[in-house]
This record gives sequence, structure tokens and C-alpha cells, in this order.
Amino acid sequence: MEIAIPLFDRFTALDAVGPYEVLSRIPGATVRFVASEPGPKRTDTRMLAIAADTSLAEAPEPEVLLVPGGPGTRDLMADGPILEWIRHAHGRSQWTTSVCTGSLLLGAAGVLDGLEATSHWLELKTLSRFGARPVERRVVEQGKVITAAGVSAGIDMALTLAARIAGEQVAQAIQLGIEYAPEPPFDAGSTRSAPSQIVELVGAAAN
Amino acid sequence: MEIAIPLFDRFTALDAVGPYEVLSRIPGATVRFVASEPGPKRTDTRMLAIAADTSLAEAPEPEVLLVPGGPGTRDLMADGPILEWIRHAHGRSQWTTSVCTGSLLLGAAGVLDGLEATSHWLELKTLSRFGARPVERRVVEQGKVITAAGVSAGIDMALTLAARIAGEQVAQAIQLGIEYAPEPPFDAGSTRSAPSQIVELVGAAAN
Repeated sequence: MEIAIPLFDRFTALDAVGPYEVLSRIPGATVRFVASEPGPKRTDTRMLAIAADTSLAEAPEPEVLLVPGGPGTRDLMADGPILEWIRHAHGRSQWTTSVCTGSLLLGAAGVLDGLEATSHWLELKTLSRFGARPVERRVVEQGKVITAAGVSAGIDMALTLAARIAGEQVAQAIQLGIEYAPEPPFDAGSTRSAPSQIVELVGAAAN
Repeated sequence: MEIAIPLFDRFTALDAVGPYEVLSRIPGATVRFVASEPGPKRTDTRMLAIAADTSLAEAPEPEVLLVPGGPGTRDLMADGPILEWIRHAHGRSQWTTSVCTGSLLLGAAGVLDGLEATSHWLELKTLSRFGARPVERRVVEQGKVITAAGVSAGIDMALTLAARIAGEQVAQAIQLGIEYAPEPPFDAGSTRSAPSQIVELVGAAAN
């Protein structure tokens, strides 16, 4: 099974690498990092570069596409090679998925019209611009389209997807392999649980 | 604050990128990916390459070192540039940390002698070879030395470390920023919770 993850300048690393770590462990799966122009793509922090080994043109019809987010999505909302690639690939895919603000790219490509979808909590409302119905859930499944909330939610989404693709035993074996029994030291990972001053702090820093 | 993450052939991507995603968000922190020879380093699956931008020699005394794991650690257990670098850096560091089998490299460098430590569950016992006391916990703190269990445990460890470095408010803001309110679809992430046939399956595949 061919799984393609498009990269672009200023993507968020964990959006892509969390799901990669899960999906690459599905027996028979190949994960390819693709981009308009192959080569190293630097993340939002500029401190890390991941290689896009393959051009979009070389991977036109993956069985699974997984679109990460990050500040770099803002420069891609006008039609261009990545949106064209998403639109074409979605027409043939078995699964079309996103993490974080990757859902805004799915939306801009026309994939989310009339569907429930999620995104990073700071950009959740933006989804309605694309005819999607924003839903405050960590993973939202709508037929073959699965969207995940911010950054780390991609790991949960990928385990759900692994179970759909290869069965629950395989997904559980992968979960045990990456020892994903999370114990966050704080209960601050969502706007519902975080102290209100933390929510305000992060919201203010984003504007 | 300078944080260095050494990379090597066949490391496990999430071991490094999970903590990077947390630690790079600490105000004033710089995360650098370092290697004996700078350049792209390919992960255990061979499907992903991350750039090591800096040589070990250019980053001899980071304030934080974070050593990821992966099958590639096996080739590094005999003394060599990475163990030498760990030993020297640990002598000056504020924090010396590892994820997954990265703790075996800390052990081989002599850092864990007499300390409690953890590792990927499949390699936990190996720690005793280095004079460490293996502990089946997700994050183990021993003074300035912090070790994390397998792969995804690095995210929990990095949030703990972020709180030590910059305070709980900053750590909570980072947790909310990466929306780390995990909801794994299965309860199979540790040997204590996973179905026994899954534990056997993963154990057998590793041998």
C-alpha cells in the first residue's frame, strides 16, 4: 500500500512524523514524502529539515494521502501544485487524511465540502470557509476522509487508520511497538482541560 | 538554551521528532540535530531522512542532550564518536536525556552507572549491563539524567523537561499548542494493558 505525505516549507514536523511512525509499520506499506520539488523541506521552527524524496508528479495516485499542517499552509491556500495534487489523488484514493491545519488544504482543494472535519483548535472555525462543518473532536471520520485535530492528534488518527487498513491486531501491535500509553505530566492538551490563562496565553501568542 | 539531538543511521524518527516538537517551543531554546558527519540520516524504516545540520564537533557542550533510539544504536555500542561526544557533553550538560534505546547509548557511555533508568520495553533488561537499574516507568528522573520508555514516551519526557527548564506554565502552553490530549483508539500501548497475544506477537517479531 502506497502512502504519500506531502511536505512544504514551514510544515509542522510532528504532524507528519507521528503518523509516519505508525503507518510505516503496517506490513506491506510504503510511506513516501512528496513535494512540488524534492529535497529538504524545513519546518516551522526552521530547526529541522526532512527530505521529500519524491516529486508530486511521481506519486500521483497514492492509496492513502496524509496532509500535515503548519504555518506554511497559509501560502498554499491559493490554487497551486499541492491543491491540484490533493484534488487528483483524492479522486482515486482509498483514504484521504489530514493532521492539524492540513485540513485547511483539504478544504481549499474542495475535499471537505459538506463534511464534518476537524483541525488545530485555533483554526477550527476556518474550516467553515470551505463548506465543512467544524467538529471539536480529536479524530473525525467521514467515509474515506479522516481529519485529525492539532499536531499530536495525528498519532491517534494514524492508529485508527491502521486498524481500518490492516485490522485491530496490527494497529494494537504497532501501538505496543511505539509504546503509546501516553502519560502527559499535565492535563493541558485541550481547551476543555487546560487552565483558562493557558488557553488565553496560547491564543494571544497565535495572533 | 542549546539542545542537541544526535542522529545516526537507522534511528527511530519519533524518538527524536516528538521531543523536538516540544523542546523547540521553549522560548529562547535552539534545537540542533547533530551527527558525526552532517547530512541526511535515514531512519530504521529507510522511508524518511532527517538532516543533521551540525557536526558533533561543532556542538561539543550543549546545555541539553537528548539521545534517540532505534535499531541503529546496536552499531554504536562499541566506543566511537557518538559515545565520546555523549561522555564529554554529559560532563558539562544541565540535562542529559534519552528516548527508547537511546538509553543504551547513555549506558554504553557510562552515564547510567548506579542510576535507575528506562528504555523500550523490549530492551529494558539490557540496561543492567551498564550498571543501571532498569525501571518499568514511562519517564525516569535521576538528578539531571532523564530517560524515557519506547518511542512515543519522548513526548511525555520532553514536557516534563520543559517544565523543569521553563516552568509549568510554559510546558502547559506547549502541550496545548501541540494539542496533546491523547486518545489512543486502543489500550495496547504497554505490556501491562495490551492483550497477551499482542505482546507475544511483538516480542516474537523483535527476535
